Amino acid sequence: MNQTSPKRPATLQWVGSIDGHLEVLDQRLLPGRTEYLHIQETESLWQAIKSLAVRGAPAIGVAAAYGMVLAGRSVPATSQSNVLMEALARAATYLKSARPTAVNLAWAVDRMIRIAQSHRGIGVRPLRQRLLLEAAEIQFEDAAMCLAIGRHGASFIKNGMGVLTHCNAGALAASDHGTALAILYEAQRRGIHFRVFIDETRPLLQGARLTAWELLSSDIDATLICDNMAGLVMKQKKVDIVIVGADRIAANGDTANKIGTYSVAQLAKAHNIPFLIAAPTSTFDLSLPSGDHIPIEERSSDEITQTGPPLFPPMQIAPLGIKTYNPAFDVTPADLIAAIVTDKGVISPVHETTIRALLN
Amino acid sequence: MNQTSPKRPATLQWVGSIDGHLEVLDQRLLPGRTEYLHIQETESLWQAIKSLAVRGAPAIGVAAAYGMVLAGRSVPATSQSNVLMEALARAATYLKSARPTAVNLAWAVDRMIRIAQSHRGIGVRPLRQRLLLEAAEIQFEDAAMCLAIGRHGASFIKNGMGVLTHCNAGALAASDHGTALAILYEAQRRGIHFRVFIDETRPLLQGARLTAWELLSSDIDATLICDNMAGLVMKQKKVDIVIVGADRIAANGDTANKIGTYSVAQLAKAHNIPFLIAAPTSTFDLSLPSGDHIPIEERSSDEITQTGPPLFPPMQIAPLGIKTYNPAFDVTPADLIAAIVTDKGVISPVHETTIRALLN
Repeated sequence: MNQTSPKRPATLQWVGSIDGHLEVLDQRLLPGRTEYLHIQETESLWQAIKSLAVRGAPAIGVAAAYGMVLAGRSVPATSQSNVLMEALARAATYLKSARPTAVNLAWAVDRMIRIAQSHRGIGVRPLRQRLLLEAAEIQFEDAAMCLAIGRHGASFIKNGMGVLTHCNAGALAASDHGTALAILYEAQRRGIHFRVFIDETRPLLQGARLTAWELLSSDIDATLICDNMAGLVMKQKKVDIVIVGADRIAANGDTANKIGTYSVAQLAKAHNIPFLIAAPTSTFDLSLPSGDHIPIEERSSDEITQTGPPLFPPMQIAPLGIKTYNPAFDVTPADLIAAIVTDKGVISPVHETTIRALLN
Repeated sequence: MNQTSPKRPATLQWVGSIDGHLEVLDQRLLPGRTEYLHIQETESLWQAIKSLAVRGAPAIGVAAAYGMVLAGRSVPATSQSNVLMEALARAATYLKSARPTAVNLAWAVDRMIRIAQSHRGIGVRPLRQRLLLEAAEIQFEDAAMCLAIGRHGASFIKNGMGVLTHCNAGALAASDHGTALAILYEAQRRGIHFRVFIDETRPLLQGARLTAWELLSSDIDATLICDNMAGLVMKQKKVDIVIVGADRIAANGDTANKIGTYSVAQLAKAHNIPFLIAAPTSTFDLSLPSGDHIPIEERSSDEITQTGPPLFPPMQIAPLGIKTYNPAFDVTPADLIAAIVTDKGVISPVHETTIRALLN
């Protein structure tokens, strides 16, 4: 279940025993180079998450779980349990600070804290082992959730359809299979023929760099467009459905996802095209009544004024001194969302009652 | 009237007598470098238009007029008038092939043909002089039209407003002052305080490279955003009005403009924000009943899959082999346009009757 396509390298994997390391595919270098970061400490993992070497809500949840393993491992086996618990608490706060919007990161870190608390009596050395087991379990569950999302969502895709997606909610954004793209992979497996339009997704071009690469390597018919062409391809009736991922879903169904998702949802409404969210149940944050409460990360202006992934030297494309606004996410109100496809089933129509009915 | 800001170099200018040359600011190099092409033949001008060294509907109209001067000059002064007329006819067809969507190019070329026909009796040498005079007149009129657009449109801008614009409809897109930006320059001259959001305008980043540079050098408060953030800034009530230029306006008011304009217009409608077109009357093509008949230029996939203006080596940002769709323009239906601001006055509401009433 946790196998990747032969053409597609794994997003992240733990190598070796508790004394091993975490290998993280450096997505900043894709599609030009396939290189892995070998991560041994929590700090390097924080940096990998912050700099988007690993990105995508489910994937950073899994990565953060392994970050807690690294934090636990840094405590000598001869220490008292409370030393380990304090180290884990510090690591939890620290890791959550890397990226504020996706709730999966906090969800995974908190689960690691809970497992440590419930096993604190077994001693530091076995507890460190138990944390590694739990992180692997989170990763395994994540892959299983992705497959389940694919199964629940595949029937939305009919022969001859045009599908538009934004950013990368694929295998690279999760342990495997992805969320929005899991639906496409499952539809393909069922023999459905369809065509995908990929928004390039400025500023960091996750669509152009990552989704294009994933769909090409999966032999899915895909066409790359600039974000500002989404309205036109909808007007031209080339798009029958929109499917994207999510970073956090509030109790009422308002959904934070990559910047530009809200514009796509409004354009889909204007053209009477169903707009779908695909996300594992770990993406819901029922503590927030609406999307107004979701923290939105703002990132550096360099991402807009310069181009060039780390593979290339930075190039100034805008004049020095120009102001920018660079929110990494936006919130799509529930009333623009036709359905949320989760690992437990499909929520439609999208509102608090239907969400709580499925999750509880 | 035809003076540029001291900080802003001229978009294009004829230097010297009929034996002189056309200087064209190479906008592909902006904002990094300010360099001029010295153009002596029609072929180099065609290439400058095709490659977007000079761009913007009014500016390529003026440039093409000078292209006809160059074509006329290539005919020896000792030739018969019909040799000159044949050379001009060939040049007209050739220049029109450089970019099909903006009507100003065809409009200017046809005007040069008409002036040559009406003066063919005066002999080749004086006729070549007359063509230069006519091109200069077209340029002068273009600058005057831009100023008039500014005067007619400035009252749309109120103190404290947020204005969103797409692509570059500024001084760089015209002989001077611009169309959409002429309105902002005039509002600024009247002491109105406002704030501008600039869509970066993928794939060729005319917003990031050109509009950001123009507004910075004009001391107008400007913030650069990615195209996919337009919906969010509207939702956040940071935008009170949208003003863009036009490449061709059909008889019913449907308007072709830079790709992404249609998406912005739909988003403006969803947020009850007035969406304005600013264009000289030379942009109307009353021979076309609706926007469905406007030819839309498709450009090379490299513009999407690679970044780097000519200033930099091209860098592959998408995987090799990915398909793309790269229309350079889209058409915004008249019913999404609150008003068209022209040099002759404001058309609102926008439909065939109000358009013909103003133009005739």
